[in-house]
Amino acid sequence: MRESLLQAQCGEPDLAPRHEPGAKLSHVIVVHVHVQVKPDSIADFRKATVANASESLKEAGVARFDVIQQADDPAAFLLVEVYRTSQAVAAHKETEHYKTWRDVVADMMAVPRSSVKFTNIFPADDGW
Amino acid sequence: MRESLLQAQCGEPDLAPRHEPGAKLSHVIVVHVHVQVKPDSIADFRKATVANASESLKEAGVARFDVIQQADDPAAFLLVEVYRTSQAVAAHKETEHYKTWRDVVADMMAVPRSSVKFTNIFPADDGW
Repeated sequence: MRESLLQAQCGEPDLAPRHEPGAKLSHVIVVHVHVQVKPDSIADFRKATVANASESLKEAGVARFDVIQQADDPAAFLLVEVYRTSQAVAAHKETEHYKTWRDVVADMMAVPRSSVKFTNIFPADDGW
Repeated sequence: MRESLLQAQCGEPDLAPRHEPGAKLSHVIVVHVHVQVKPDSIADFRKATVANASESLKEAGVARFDVIQQADDPAAFLLVEVYRTSQAVAAHKETEHYKTWRDVVADMMAVPRSSVKFTNIFPADDGW
């Protein structure tokens, strides 16, 4: 019941609050995508990835889409993707901007990218 | 000049905008702290870490302080700490809540914790 309510709300561009005050919340899906690029692809990767992140933020089910670069290794990047639902994770993969990014950066990677999935402990959903 | 201006501003509880519109920004410091806890310490670690995160968010130089739990390993946690300046990183370590957390969780860890530092590519500073 609650799950289907969440799904319905996440289809809307403006997400209404999904909880009662004081409710215990821990429901966003955080996906960390680790990317090690070839040294001569750093600038091109940044450009393509910022373009993808900007467009991804417009998706209704995407709460955040951060791109960060490791301080002691400029060829190491991490994409921090925060989704409202598992449906939003799947929907992202169907977007044109994701498919374009995937194809454009394919040859820039020094090793295959890897991902790790997390759930939020703090803050609660409305802090993302 | 700009650095000292930033420092002065970060001493204030309410941070004024640190940039002109359209300026290229990439200045927050993102610290990922990886923690693997003993299986019987998961609940206690969560409690102590949420308390620390809540207090840390009140620090003037802390933009975010997320605590996330790995989906396929509930004993694996990641603290995502986002600071406005390097001074804020140092200031955090001097707080009572940090020192309390550090001491309380010391015996909960299965292995020593490790950290990785990043800078933001996207979004710019005002998106954190």
